[in-house]
Amino acid sequence: MAVARITEVIGSSTKSWEDAVQNALARANKTLRNLTGLEVTKMNAHIENGKITEYRAHVRITFILEDTL
Amino acid sequence: MAVARITEVIGSSTKSWEDAVQNALARANKTLRNLTGLEVTKMNAHIENGKITEYRAHVRITFILEDTL
Amino acid sequence: MAVARITEVIGSSTKSWEDAVQNALARANKTLRNLTGLEVTKMNAHIENGKITEYRAHVRITFILEDTL
Amino acid sequence: MAVARITEVIGSSTKSWEDAVQNALARANKTLRNLTGLEVTKMNAHIENGKITEYRAHVRITFILEDTL
Amino acid sequence: MAVARITEVIGSSTKSWEDAVQNALARANKTLRNLTGLEVTKMNAHIENGKITEYRAHVRITFILEDTL
Amino acid sequence: MAVARITEVIGSSTKSWEDAVQNALARANKTLRNLTGLEVTKMNAHIENGKITEYRAHVRITFILEDTL
Amino acid sequence: MAVARITEVIGSSTKSWEDAVQNALARANKTLRNLTGLEVTKMNAHIENGKITEYRAHVRITFILEDTL
Amino acid sequence: MAVARITEVIGSSTKSWEDAVQNALARANKTLRNLTGLEVTKMNAHIENGKITEYRAHVRITFILEDTL
Amino acid sequence: MAVARITEVIGSSTKSWEDAVQNALARANKTLRNLTGLEVTKMNAHIENGKITEYRAHVRITFILEDTL
Amino acid sequence: MAVARITEVIGSSTKSWEDAVQNALARANKTLRNLTGLEVTKMNAHIENGKITEYRAHVRITFILEDTL
Amino acid sequence: MAVARITEVIGSSTKSWEDAVQNALARANKTLRNLTGLEVTKMNAHIENGKITEYRAHVRITFILEDTL
Amino acid sequence: MAVARITEVIGSSTKSWEDAVQNALARANKTLRNLTGLEVTKMNAHIENGKITEYRAHVRITFILEDTL
Repeated sequence: MAVARITEVIGSSTKSWEDAVQNALARANKTLRNLTGLEVTKMNAHIENGKITEYRAHVRITFILEDTL
Repeated sequence: MAVARITEVIGSSTKSWEDAVQNALARANKTLRNLTGLEVTKMNAHIENGKITEYRAHVRITFILEDTL
Repeated sequence: MAVARITEVIGSSTKSWEDAVQNALARANKTLRNLTGLEVTKMNAHIENGKITEYRAHVRITFILEDTL
Repeated sequence: MAVARITEVIGSSTKSWEDAVQNALARANKTLRNLTGLEVTKMNAHIENGKITEYRAHVRITFILEDTL
Repeated sequence: MAVARITEVIGSSTKSWEDAVQNALARANKTLRNLTGLEVTKMNAHIENGKITEYRAHVRITFILEDTL
Repeated sequence: MAVARITEVIGSSTKSWEDAVQNALARANKTLRNLTGLEVTKMNAHIENGKITEYRAHVRITFILEDTL
Repeated sequence: MAVARITEVIGSSTKSWEDAVQNALARANKTLRNLTGLEVTKMNAHIENGKITEYRAHVRITFILEDTL
Repeated sequence: MAVARITEVIGSSTKSWEDAVQNALARANKTLRNLTGLEVTKMNAHIENGKITEYRAHVRITFILEDTL
Repeated sequence: MAVARITEVIGSSTKSWEDAVQNALARANKTLRNLTGLEVTKMNAHIENGKITEYRAHVRITFILEDTL
Repeated sequence: MAVARITEVIGSSTKSWEDAVQNALARANKTLRNLTGLEVTKMNAHIENGKITEYRAHVRITFILEDTL
Repeated sequence: MAVARITEVIGSSTKSWEDAVQNALARANKTLRNLTGLEVTKMNAHIENGKITEYRAHVRITFILEDTL
Repeated sequence: MAVARITEVIGSSTKSWEDAVQNALARANKTLRNLTGLEVTKMNAHIENGKITEYRAHVRITFILEDTL
């Protein structure tokens, strides 16, 4: 049977949390194969001069380990 | 006094988590009356070929039980 | 060294949770200085006639206490 | 063997949290049979003019499903 | 898109927690259609004369709501 | 839209937890305006000679920030 | 310096949760000395014929260990 | 009314978590009377050479205190 | 001194959760050395036609990092 | 009876978490009176070039509100 | 197989949390045998005149029950 | 934008938890680049003959993934 692994990454974006998640996913997709799902576990942000300058999303990404496919 | 009940549903969407919440709400509204509020408790997603193909939002929906209005 | 404080506010919006967070931040920025970050800890909503009429976001905002800068 | 179900309701009262729990139980008892237990999971309140005008108790109620008795 | 609902049941068995989960599932399957998954959230037991006489498993069961299929 | 703030106080009483909550609320009402709700998050007590001598209730109080009314 | 220990007991009562806590405290006081505090961590109940027949309070009780006074 | 106490033990077994729970229960039964229930709160294991050599189950055991029966 | 790392994997099985844990461990053992322990953090399942078709166990596996042995 | 308030601050230090807590306390002591206790809820750090350059301690500080003394 | 028990104590010290843990351990060692491990679950403190006068550490201590050695 | 990853390690030391964190960091620094922060999530210890023989600190370490700098 397939065995999957979960890795936790933090994506960031100047636009939105949704975009921060997409950036996290795009980066994970460069290195990992067989991604099957993700969960957003934290949404925070960096503020400068009263404005959000960086949206950050903590994302747990699940992928199937190759030799179990 | 009014008594309310909480039901937990999972909405999905190919577009966004916001849309997944709206789909959950639209479905609940077909069967239940007197909806008063909701809370998003989990945001996850299904991934295929490195892209999110289905956004899923866990939503706890509160509604007032009819004979207590 | 700098000492920061965390305050918890609830922003609301008729449009979206993202907008509710922005409203919370805008209000905090009127009274507090040196805001450095925020975290969204809860997303809920008020419903009327089966529609979301008010999006609410619980936001923990961090700011540096003045005489420690 | 018996199978039970848990339903989550919110009772309210102008008098006390204890009374709010009793109201939740009385309402559940109208619709459900074979109630066996409950747990209070949240106690909050609505305030107007500096006074509590509505006590609210979140209650998880357990009942045995009929055809398993 | 499909909308799912989560219901929480407690299965019991004189044999094992695994069997208690199966009993919970069998009962849910009588009343609900389109079950897609479950999660075990609590394992406890009743003891008499120093022996476990009833295994109990709290199970959250997910099923797709009919008119969203 | 209105923005609210949550403050956490600990009320005490020699009589009961209910009274401890009321004392916390009465004190908050002296300094803060536009209180809208509260949640009891902890109930503990001080014991002397085997008797409760002080009931303590942790209470999170929500109030609307003035210039957003 | 004093070292304290925490023990967890479950008090019950046919009258109220407050009384269930008092019963738990009264029993602990028979066996243990130097009780200094308690915290209520769970309030549940047994139901028969739609009425609460037994209130149960989970209580964590702190007491100072004798030879450290 | 009866007052119960909860004690937390860790059972172990070379065979399974189920057996580890039974070992914890058997040991508790040697010293304590009037055991009424248990809850499994953690399942972990020791590994050697890639195999589980010891299953460990954290178990919270409830028993009624003698003079309250 | 030794430094260990924790990795989170999801094992699956058509037979049982116990078997799902063993499959997760077997797969981890192919790639990682010096495994010392594991903890089961979640047990869920996929259901088809009212039957569990895939048991899934989330497992946190600890292993000692090589150059610290 | 006295009513206390809890405020959450983040102290920092280049030396240690213990020192970060002391800095948080020293700062709180400048503005607030009648501090009675604190709890450390999080210990994190900033790293540069593989070294901790700033220890950060999240501290919840309790103080009695003046007109309740 | 060995069965262990977990007991929860609170150590205190005028010097540091580390010392408070050592005091808790020293006291446990007077009464209990076969201590195998501990976990620090809470670090708080008593404050007087703006200074920490008593560090307190909540410690869960594990020890093997004698007749299972 | 940069994407970071979080890895969880357990450092150990015969001296203190602070030293255990430093050992965890030193080891992570050998293999990983661009470390930006850490959080201590658990402090436990191994005991022999009534003394702590090994301090263990669970540390979540954040580092920026190379090709996102």
